[in-house]
Amino acid sequence: MTEPLFDRIAIVGLGLIGSSIARGVKARGLARRVAGYDVSPEVRARASALGFCDEVAETPQAAVTQASLVVLAVPVGATAAAVKALAPHLARGSILTEVGSVKAAVIRQVLAELPEHAVFVPGHPIAGTEHSGPDAGFAELFEGRWCILTPCERSSEEAVAKVTALWRGLGSAVEIMTPEHHDIVLAITSHIPHLIAFNIVGTAADVEEVTQSEVIKFSAGGFRDFTRIAASDPVMWRDVFLNNKEAVLEMLGRFSEDLAALQRMIRWDDGEALLELFTRTRAIRRGIIDAGQDTQAADFGRPHGHED
Amino acid sequence: MTEPLFDRIAIVGLGLIGSSIARGVKARGLARRVAGYDVSPEVRARASALGFCDEVAETPQAAVTQASLVVLAVPVGATAAAVKALAPHLARGSILTEVGSVKAAVIRQVLAELPEHAVFVPGHPIAGTEHSGPDAGFAELFEGRWCILTPCERSSEEAVAKVTALWRGLGSAVEIMTPEHHDIVLAITSHIPHLIAFNIVGTAADVEEVTQSEVIKFSAGGFRDFTRIAASDPVMWRDVFLNNKEAVLEMLGRFSEDLAALQRMIRWDDGEALLELFTRTRAIRRGIIDAGQDTQAADFGRPHGHED
Repeated sequence: MTEPLFDRIAIVGLGLIGSSIARGVKARGLARRVAGYDVSPEVRARASALGFCDEVAETPQAAVTQASLVVLAVPVGATAAAVKALAPHLARGSILTEVGSVKAAVIRQVLAELPEHAVFVPGHPIAGTEHSGPDAGFAELFEGRWCILTPCERSSEEAVAKVTALWRGLGSAVEIMTPEHHDIVLAITSHIPHLIAFNIVGTAADVEEVTQSEVIKFSAGGFRDFTRIAASDPVMWRDVFLNNKEAVLEMLGRFSEDLAALQRMIRWDDGEALLELFTRTRAIRRGIIDAGQDTQAADFGRPHGHED
Repeated sequence: MTEPLFDRIAIVGLGLIGSSIARGVKARGLARRVAGYDVSPEVRARASALGFCDEVAETPQAAVTQASLVVLAVPVGATAAAVKALAPHLARGSILTEVGSVKAAVIRQVLAELPEHAVFVPGHPIAGTEHSGPDAGFAELFEGRWCILTPCERSSEEAVAKVTALWRGLGSAVEIMTPEHHDIVLAITSHIPHLIAFNIVGTAADVEEVTQSEVIKFSAGGFRDFTRIAASDPVMWRDVFLNNKEAVLEMLGRFSEDLAALQRMIRWDDGEALLELFTRTRAIRRGIIDAGQDTQAADFGRPHGHED
């Protein structure tokens, strides 16, 4: 049998991501012991009942004491408060890591509280579903996914190697980049798509000529895919947009400019320009399928109907 | 055994939709004989090889002569030319129907050519995939989907009833509405979502700080769902936008206004307003799942990872 990577892992925040890490770590035997904590008494009670941790602690202190790895898995906006609560109790030589969708802002908040005797490895698993809470997690969530690590001035090489081993153990591939680059890449691949999805679902709800029931009935025409994205955790996404404001506003500006150009093509019947754009976007899709990033097509064979 | 609904059906246009209708009609025994025609010699040859029609005709005339039902399944922009070619050969008392994603513009084009002795039932099955061509079709494409019929001045009650029976036979539920209402409903549930998906995939391809390979690698963060939509048939979609220009520009205007408001919320740190919007969009998603319009969740149980 291989040695577990860690003696004791503490997971702070037991929602979709935190509870999936706990389940994955147990399923793969990556730690001798997994302790969990959540600020919500209801979530703690539910986590105890579900039993995906060896113990659910009643305080952050009780969870992180003696842990060689602490994983912070809370909404980005709750980072500062969570770090303040647990930082004084971090064990000597322990590693703190987290899973926030924004890196530069989170790193600033963590470094303000991190004690001298601990190190910090910022991370971001590119995985999730539109569901949230401790019931939504599952051990396989990170399999075949990417996890980005963005080392900072308080990351030791050894700690980065250990956190890399954790994510590989959970089935992910690991990529290293700077926090600033991460925030730009994710703004365009994740934050703007979510923003647009939230926006169109809101717009559709307000069209007075079309009933809500019609929107729902005929959603297979394309709208449905947006509603899945727009069903993602509201608190998490509020925090993402407010904490990656600069990159989000920059990319949103580009999106809006391009949309204005597209609107102009339609108004002026420029079929050739439309065809050129749509042909280009189809080729990008092909690249994603070739890269194996569409598990749905891979897992289920037949594409699900979505178009019109 | 039940009697087939039609003696002879002719299908003009043998792409994803036309070939799926042919396959479904054969599988369900809805007609004694299915004849097919496509303007492309390559598609005709492929359709012959695939064998989903009883005969693949070499001219529109040969396909539609003696057919009691003619189904036009070509891109919206090809409607006028196709109707011109087949109209003189429509059998006395025959029904012409079609499947275009836009109704008012298509009806104008068909009525300009329709002979006195035939009737016309405009229709639109809300089903499809991002794939196109005769190989992409399958008999079950319309099962559990909606088909909208938009009767016009040249639709007899009897013809509407027969076309309704066809779609029910293919497994769809049928809804009747006016062409104008259809064009508004579909603008918001289908045309604008596609337009936005095409747009963001184009924007992402142009961000110079982010490589194409990064966009593809980290697409699981939300972008991937857009690329599937943005991979839809370029010709079909060019035609949809140009033929439903008025409703598309109107809905696009609303979308852009809402997006500007959302942008402002982010710039001014209005977390409360963001949270309110995201909570509202999550509830709409719930409505779609309850209405059974998310076959993916229904068929496959576990949601596929998409979020961040």
